[in-house]
Amino acid sequence: ENVGGTTYFYSPEDFAPQFQSVQKEYIFHQQQQQPVVLPNYSFYPGMPSHIAHMKVKANMPQFFLPDEIKMELLNRHACSLMQIDPAQHPDIPTEVDSYHQLYPLEAPPANPLQKSSMFSYPSTCYKAVNTKDCLTYCLKRIHGFRLANTKCLATVDQWKKLYHPNVVQLKEVFTTTAFGDNSLIFVYDFHPVAETLMIRHFSASSTVNGYTTDTTRTFTGSKTSGVSNGPRQHAGLLPESLIWAYIVQLSSALRAIHTAGLACGVMDPTKILISSKSRLRINCIGIFDVLTFDSNQGNYVSLVPHYQQEDLVALGKVVLALACNSIMAIQREQVSNSLELVARNYSTDLKNLILYLMGSQRRQRSVNDIMPMIGARFYTQLDAAQLRSDVVENELAK
Amino acid sequence: ENVGGTTYFYSPEDFAPQFQSVQKEYIFHQQQQQPVVLPNYSFYPGMPSHIAHMKVKANMPQFFLPDEIKMELLNRHACSLMQIDPAQHPDIPTEVDSYHQLYPLEAPPANPLQKSSMFSYPSTCYKAVNTKDCLTYCLKRIHGFRLANTKCLATVDQWKKLYHPNVVQLKEVFTTTAFGDNSLIFVYDFHPVAETLMIRHFSASSTVNGYTTDTTRTFTGSKTSGVSNGPRQHAGLLPESLIWAYIVQLSSALRAIHTAGLACGVMDPTKILISSKSRLRINCIGIFDVLTFDSNQGNYVSLVPHYQQEDLVALGKVVLALACNSIMAIQREQVSNSLELVARNYSTDLKNLILYLMGSQRRQRSVNDIMPMIGARFYTQLDAAQLRSDVVENELAK
Repeated sequence: ENVGGTTYFYSPEDFAPQFQSVQKEYIFHQQQQQPVVLPNYSFYPGMPSHIAHMKVKANMPQFFLPDEIKMELLNRHACSLMQIDPAQHPDIPTEVDSYHQLYPLEAPPANPLQKSSMFSYPSTCYKAVNTKDCLTYCLKRIHGFRLANTKCLATVDQWKKLYHPNVVQLKEVFTTTAFGDNSLIFVYDFHPVAETLMIRHFSASSTVNGYTTDTTRTFTGSKTSGVSNGPRQHAGLLPESLIWAYIVQLSSALRAIHTAGLACGVMDPTKILISSKSRLRINCIGIFDVLTFDSNQGNYVSLVPHYQQEDLVALGKVVLALACNSIMAIQREQVSNSLELVARNYSTDLKNLILYLMGSQRRQRSVNDIMPMIGARFYTQLDAAQLRSDVVENELAK
Repeated sequence: ENVGGTTYFYSPEDFAPQFQSVQKEYIFHQQQQQPVVLPNYSFYPGMPSHIAHMKVKANMPQFFLPDEIKMELLNRHACSLMQIDPAQHPDIPTEVDSYHQLYPLEAPPANPLQKSSMFSYPSTCYKAVNTKDCLTYCLKRIHGFRLANTKCLATVDQWKKLYHPNVVQLKEVFTTTAFGDNSLIFVYDFHPVAETLMIRHFSASSTVNGYTTDTTRTFTGSKTSGVSNGPRQHAGLLPESLIWAYIVQLSSALRAIHTAGLACGVMDPTKILISSKSRLRINCIGIFDVLTFDSNQGNYVSLVPHYQQEDLVALGKVVLALACNSIMAIQREQVSNSLELVARNYSTDLKNLILYLMGSQRRQRSVNDIMPMIGARFYTQLDAAQLRSDVVENELAK
C-alpha cells in the first residue's frame, strides 16, 4: 500500500491494535494525561547499534555481509526464473504429470546410457513448476526404471512426512512415460544456487576417487578452486570451525532420519547441498530406499538398522575427507595416514569423532553418542545463527 | 534504484559479476552455444516450496508468522522514534555528555528517593541518541552516586569487549552532573519493544516476592496475563520447550561471561530482556561490578570466582521460578515443594539441572557441566533458528 509516497506493509487499521499494546507498555505518559510527540508515519529509524557494531570472529564460517545475503537472494531469483527455448529441446517434454516448464539442471551425460554410480541407473535433474500450486520443484528422473514392487511406497510416505531444516524434502514419487521410457520421478523442494559439497570442496582434486561424481560432470571444469572454497585454516586445510558447523547439521539430519525409523543411504558429498556460506541439506533422500527395496524383494525394512550403521560410517568418511580436504583421504589404504593428518592439524575431539563413526565396533552405535564430542560447539553454532538472524531481520526492517 | 517501475537493490553493473558466476554453474547451454531465454529483469519468483509447506511443531516456543515478524519490526520502529515534548519535561536535560533526545523508558518512581532493590541506589532508564554516530542507545542512570574508585573501570573495559547475542552490550560508563546530582551513566545497546522476563512471565503474580521489582513498577497493572504469556503446557505451567530455549540462551551468555573472567551478578528476571517470542538478552551488565567494587574497596577481582558460583545459583532460581510459573517458588521455605512440582510436571533433566545449579556443593561448579543435561535440545534450538532464518530470508527476498 502506498500512501502519500510512503509504502506501508499494513493498512493503518491492521497496524493499530498491535501498536496500542506498545503504547500501553511504553507510553506511560498517556496514562498520566501528558502529551507525547509521536510521528504519524513509519519509516526505518536507522541501524540498531548492536548491528552497527557487530563483532564477528575472524574465520567464522557463517560470516556474511548484508550485501552478500541480498546478492544471493537475487541470484536465487534469477536461477528460479531461468527457462529453456522449447524449440531447442525437443527431448524435454512440455509436461510431465502435473509439472511443466522443465529446465535441465545438469548437462546431458556424454554417453546417454552412463549410469549414476551411486544409484546404478542413469539419472537427470530438472527444475519444474507444479501446475496445481504454481511452486517450483526439483525433479530427479531415474531413467529406464520399472517399479516392480509398490510396497516401497510406504517408505516413501514416511520420507514425505520428514520435514527438517537440513534435509531437502521429498514431495512425491511417480512413474511416467513422458520421456519415452519408463522413468521414475522423485519430486523435491528446489533450492536455487545451492551447490554440492563435492563441488564446493572436492572438485579441484586432480583425480576424484572413492566417491561417485555423477552430479559434478559439467561443473568440475568451469570451477576455479580456492576462490570460492572459503577461508582456509593453514596448509590448504579447511578451518575446524567450518567442519564442526557441517558436523552439527549433518548429525541433526541423521538424528531426525534415524528417529523416524529410516536410513539416509545417501550420506555422500555428491548428495549434500550447500546454500549460502555453510547451510547444508541432504539431497535425494528416498531414492536409495526405493531402488534397494526393489532389488531386495521387500527385505528392505528389516535391513534399516544395518543401513543406519552404514550412515554413521558414511558420515565419518565425509568428515575425514573434509578434514584432509581431499576425497582421496578415505581410500582404504589412505585412512591411517589421513587420521594422522587429522591428529596433527585438528582437535582430539574431531579425531575421536571420526574414529567413533568409522569404527567397526560390534556394538550398536548411535548418532546421539557424538553429542559430547560436539560439546560447547553447539553454543558456537547457536550464537552464529542468532547473529545472522539479527542481520537479516535488520535488512528486512529497512 | 527504480528502473521502469521495478526496484533494484543493485545497479545492473554491480549485479553482473555475481550473476556471471551463476551462469557458469547453471547455464551450461551457453557453453554449448545454445540460446537460453533469461528474463532481463529481476523480481520475486514466488514463495519457495520449503517455506510454503513449512511444518512447525505445535507448542514450538519460537513459533512465528512472517506477519508477526513484520509487525514487530514496525513496533520497534515506532518505539525507536518516540520523543517527548521537552516543555513538559523540564527535569530531563536536553543533553547529557554526547547524548541528546532523552526519552524516559520507565515512569518516575512514586517516591523519588526509592532505591532499586537490586542496586541500592535509585535508577532511571532513558533512550537517547548519540550525537557522534547518530545511533540510539539506552542510558541507565544511577542517581546520587559518586565514583570513589576508578580502578573498577578496568572491569568496565572488559565488559565493553564482550559481544554476545544473549547479552545487551555495554558501550560506555561516565559520570555527569547534568541531572543536578552526581549520576553515573551506563550506556547500552537499545532493544526497542523488548520486555523483561519479569513482566512477560511473573507480572500477574498477586504478590511479587523474592525478586526485585523495580523495573516493573509501571507495567504490572496494565498487563493482561494469559494473553501475551504465550503457549501453556497444562495446569498454568509453561511448555518445557520454552524453558529449555531460555536455559540454552542464558547458559550461553554465562559461558561467555565466565570465560572472559567476569561474573554476571544480575541473573535476575528483572534484568533479562525478551525480544520477539523467545530471544533473551542479559541486561545491565557491569553495574553490579562497579557498585560492588566501590563498596569493597577494590577486593572485587579476587571475589569473581565466588560471584560466578552465585551466578549459577541465580540461574537455577530463574529456571525454578519459570518451571513453577511463579516467583514465589524460589522462597527458601517453598523450594522443596517447588522441586516436587517440577518432578511431577517436567523431565528428569530439568529437575537435575535445577538441583545442580542451586546445589550447595563444596566443589567448584561450572556452567559447562549442564551441557549433557541440555543434550539433544541443542539440536531443537538450532533447527528452530534455521527455520526462522529461512522465513525471514524469504521475507527479505520479496
